[in-house]
Amino acid sequence: MKIGFIGLGNMGAAIAGNLVKAGHDVTVYNRTAAKAEPLVAQGAHAAATIKDACRGEAVFTMLADDHAVEEAALGPEGIVASLPKGALHISSSTISVALSERLTAAHAKAGQRFVAAPVFGRPEAAAAKMLFVAAAGPADAIKTAQPLLDAIGQKMFVLGEKPSSANLVKLSGNFLIAVVIESIGEAVALVTKGGVDRHAYIDLLTSTLFSAPVYKVYGNLIANEKFSPAGFAAPLGAKDIRLALQAAESLRVPLPLASLLRDRFLRLMAEGGENLDWSAISTLAARDAGL
Amino acid sequence: MKIGFIGLGNMGAAIAGNLVKAGHDVTVYNRTAAKAEPLVAQGAHAAATIKDACRGEAVFTMLADDHAVEEAALGPEGIVASLPKGALHISSSTISVALSERLTAAHAKAGQRFVAAPVFGRPEAAAAKMLFVAAAGPADAIKTAQPLLDAIGQKMFVLGEKPSSANLVKLSGNFLIAVVIESIGEAVALVTKGGVDRHAYIDLLTSTLFSAPVYKVYGNLIANEKFSPAGFAAPLGAKDIRLALQAAESLRVPLPLASLLRDRFLRLMAEGGENLDWSAISTLAARDAGL
Amino acid sequence: MKIGFIGLGNMGAAIAGNLVKAGHDVTVYNRTAAKAEPLVAQGAHAAATIKDACRGEAVFTMLADDHAVEEAALGPEGIVASLPKGALHISSSTISVALSERLTAAHAKAGQRFVAAPVFGRPEAAAAKMLFVAAAGPADAIKTAQPLLDAIGQKMFVLGEKPSSANLVKLSGNFLIAVVIESIGEAVALVTKGGVDRHAYIDLLTSTLFSAPVYKVYGNLIANEKFSPAGFAAPLGAKDIRLALQAAESLRVPLPLASLLRDRFLRLMAEGGENLDWSAISTLAARDAGL
Amino acid sequence: MKIGFIGLGNMGAAIAGNLVKAGHDVTVYNRTAAKAEPLVAQGAHAAATIKDACRGEAVFTMLADDHAVEEAALGPEGIVASLPKGALHISSSTISVALSERLTAAHAKAGQRFVAAPVFGRPEAAAAKMLFVAAAGPADAIKTAQPLLDAIGQKMFVLGEKPSSANLVKLSGNFLIAVVIESIGEAVALVTKGGVDRHAYIDLLTSTLFSAPVYKVYGNLIANEKFSPAGFAAPLGAKDIRLALQAAESLRVPLPLASLLRDRFLRLMAEGGENLDWSAISTLAARDAGL
Repeated sequence: MKIGFIGLGNMGAAIAGNLVKAGHDVTVYNRTAAKAEPLVAQGAHAAATIKDACRGEAVFTMLADDHAVEEAALGPEGIVASLPKGALHISSSTISVALSERLTAAHAKAGQRFVAAPVFGRPEAAAAKMLFVAAAGPADAIKTAQPLLDAIGQKMFVLGEKPSSANLVKLSGNFLIAVVIESIGEAVALVTKGGVDRHAYIDLLTSTLFSAPVYKVYGNLIANEKFSPAGFAAPLGAKDIRLALQAAESLRVPLPLASLLRDRFLRLMAEGGENLDWSAISTLAARDAGL
Repeated sequence: MKIGFIGLGNMGAAIAGNLVKAGHDVTVYNRTAAKAEPLVAQGAHAAATIKDACRGEAVFTMLADDHAVEEAALGPEGIVASLPKGALHISSSTISVALSERLTAAHAKAGQRFVAAPVFGRPEAAAAKMLFVAAAGPADAIKTAQPLLDAIGQKMFVLGEKPSSANLVKLSGNFLIAVVIESIGEAVALVTKGGVDRHAYIDLLTSTLFSAPVYKVYGNLIANEKFSPAGFAAPLGAKDIRLALQAAESLRVPLPLASLLRDRFLRLMAEGGENLDWSAISTLAARDAGL
Repeated sequence: MKIGFIGLGNMGAAIAGNLVKAGHDVTVYNRTAAKAEPLVAQGAHAAATIKDACRGEAVFTMLADDHAVEEAALGPEGIVASLPKGALHISSSTISVALSERLTAAHAKAGQRFVAAPVFGRPEAAAAKMLFVAAAGPADAIKTAQPLLDAIGQKMFVLGEKPSSANLVKLSGNFLIAVVIESIGEAVALVTKGGVDRHAYIDLLTSTLFSAPVYKVYGNLIANEKFSPAGFAAPLGAKDIRLALQAAESLRVPLPLASLLRDRFLRLMAEGGENLDWSAISTLAARDAGL
Repeated sequence: MKIGFIGLGNMGAAIAGNLVKAGHDVTVYNRTAAKAEPLVAQGAHAAATIKDACRGEAVFTMLADDHAVEEAALGPEGIVASLPKGALHISSSTISVALSERLTAAHAKAGQRFVAAPVFGRPEAAAAKMLFVAAAGPADAIKTAQPLLDAIGQKMFVLGEKPSSANLVKLSGNFLIAVVIESIGEAVALVTKGGVDRHAYIDLLTSTLFSAPVYKVYGNLIANEKFSPAGFAAPLGAKDIRLALQAAESLRVPLPLASLLRDRFLRLMAEGGENLDWSAISTLAARDAGL
């Protein structure tokens, strides 16, 4: 397929690379143009503008936040203004439910199609085509997107016809991960103050009931107190919890755990932890215990 | 080895059975004597009193709560009063850190040895010898206990020389499981109110980042709203959170997640949920969302 | 002074009436024009447009929320576009810190002056000139505003030169009131379930340590379970807590009590309590206790 | 009346003094006998043992905690063992609901009468006869106690026939005060970080909606950051919140605010604040905001 790809950060570049490898005709765009070079070397075309990346059957966006997606999609020479009728916008960024709903409406009005397809996994997983893709949108649009989404991850889950459902699920997933971080932080503070070695403790947890990757990854970061460089920085974690809370507020769903996490992230940043990995919220439980 | 075993509930009977199968000479005791019969059929001896179960090199206890263990161990004709000098008490019940410390002192005073060895796993895991054992105690006592503990589980973790460390770790483990339950409950309430099918959602979670058994077991209970009959009843969950909070209070470790769980359990029971599985606390998030 | 007054709801009409009584030349504007009639009967002039209410030395706004103030102040024929250079805008609405900052900047750019002067008190207090006024703005602007603010309340507090400080203080005040409501709700649930008569209990509290008006007013509403008609409806309470949390987030100040209140309001509304007084969040503690 | 008085700390000495002044024949007892001297100078008799203080129509206890009351009342030569049949024990200490229930049962069994009459107010209020008394017990016992309770406070509230109701109300009162402290702490952190002077802020609050003594006393302590010497030390506050939570747990009443306070007190003490006034929990909100 002839497609565009907008946003070549760590995640975007890895995903776009897999689309090229899968044999698609990919035109890439990034605000800082130099980031396109490695992909051009792999066979992609470089676009000078967003408009130029919107001339195919579909265009991906993989951008940092709501603001960047809003500008790229709804701006004057943006995706909605540029994409041909019937063509498809696949949004893989972690954005708010509210923006996803606005994009759904704008594309519908412009006679275009829209699928939200946020992904679970870090840049290494993206490079290895090991992402999990949470997709939602009208059945025909999902069908068009499927070969593209199959090319970028190990498995795709379809979550219904309303695109924003996929964004809600993505936000809920990051919420669940943050809960795991906080809970390990509290448990480690407790047993450490009780005299148990925290490495032995994490080993026990992750070899038994808590063998999921998320416990292993974060359990080890926490046991090793290794929060820098950040794999996923605290302000990004804070942002995703905020987006989850906003979606929950619109839907009138109280989320006491998310409220607690919000306060943890605010505190971490107020105390100077902006550049740390989001898992550094785990240190607050230890500090509160006088450790 | 010649050993005793006190407490033949679902867990105790399964564990004692594995000790018999491993070739040990096991004398079992249970307040309701009939429960000993199947074990006698397998080759165990039945004791008429606790005292009679305390004539070997070691005695296990696997009882419901602090009260039962206190009575069995510290009562007039109890374990401390009956066990030979140098013999070993292995406590596998989920008890408080405070009681574990009292038992440690009482056995030391009586010239006996004490190991705390609580286990992770449900009765089926116990029967299948698939338990995880968290053990703590003096090195020589652990060494004596090892062949016995190897006979009842798939893996043993040694958590130091202070027996109560193992009890603290066990309580922290149940705390972590309860957090998982609550977090799934909140996430399911959120995405369900947003229009996502909860079975598809749990499937996505447990096939991706949250592939640990604990997410699968409780994710399915929650998706299926199957809280009765209780695998582990709400009052038992409430009790373990209370014991975790008490240990945390003695150690001066604030645990905001445990505080939240405490309130959830109280509410579930105040609203009539005493006989439900502890995972029924997950329904409260849904109810608060008006679902 | 020749002034304008925009927004004639219960609060605005009472305040504007006091300005007329104090001898000022007041031109009033309300979207629903009929609300101006009683004030015209008292001696005010009616304006057909916002622009017409902006021809004097100062103009008040007393509107429902951010949206209404934004439209009135920053819209095409709005206050910023209409007010003479050097004239003063006094904003008495409960608005967000962020909007107050935008208004400060917009008025400065237009060569106008801006004071935020939100008030504490219900409509009856406004009518009786018993409001408390929390004002902030540049010293000269406060000086101009003073005779006007003296005419509408019993006491004015100056909170510095940055107008948004007054908005922050107003939001913090509503936060504190909501905490009082929640705390009475929990305490009443506790003692009621313990067998104490809740009327006797509220009587004890409010005759002793908690003699402040806020405890008397809300204590009685709670003891009498009188939440309808709403003096201040739940969605307005929810909004003010949200604005407090947003201001706190910008400033990076964790507010665990406000987070808890947010969840209470969401739940009350999810369960159908939209039309109840905000003090109805107090019923949730009772319900959680099975009462 | 001929009465005894056990416990001559700051509160007890002041209360006993007022009983002497009112003309009663008071025999006082304190473990450290020297504390009785000033009262003997005023006209009281000194008892060498608890037994000796139990020879009249009534005996007061005003002791530090459950442990002290338990020992004095239920110990071998204690009040229950010593008091004549029909005589009255008035317990003014802040004790647990559970102990109050045990005392009720023990006195009933011994043919004695029991009234719980905890008080609200600091030592200065006690000295000035300005305490508020929350009393509960059988009508005839209350009637006997009334002249004594009238002599020690400005007003008595009767809370029913079950003595422990008064203890529950006392604990709930301290819970409400702690909520006030925490809420002021959060509000002050918010407005201070927003640039408002905290003294001006407390002045505004306490001259307007929050004119109750409790806001004035604690608002000023917080604005002045004056937490030492402690009027009421952090561990005592922590204890009362714990007793409130225990009573709530027995009654199955979730108290999210009390849970939050529990964590605050644990943290304050873990961080070294044992000797500070309990209002020092207010500093935690400021610290979490990076102030």
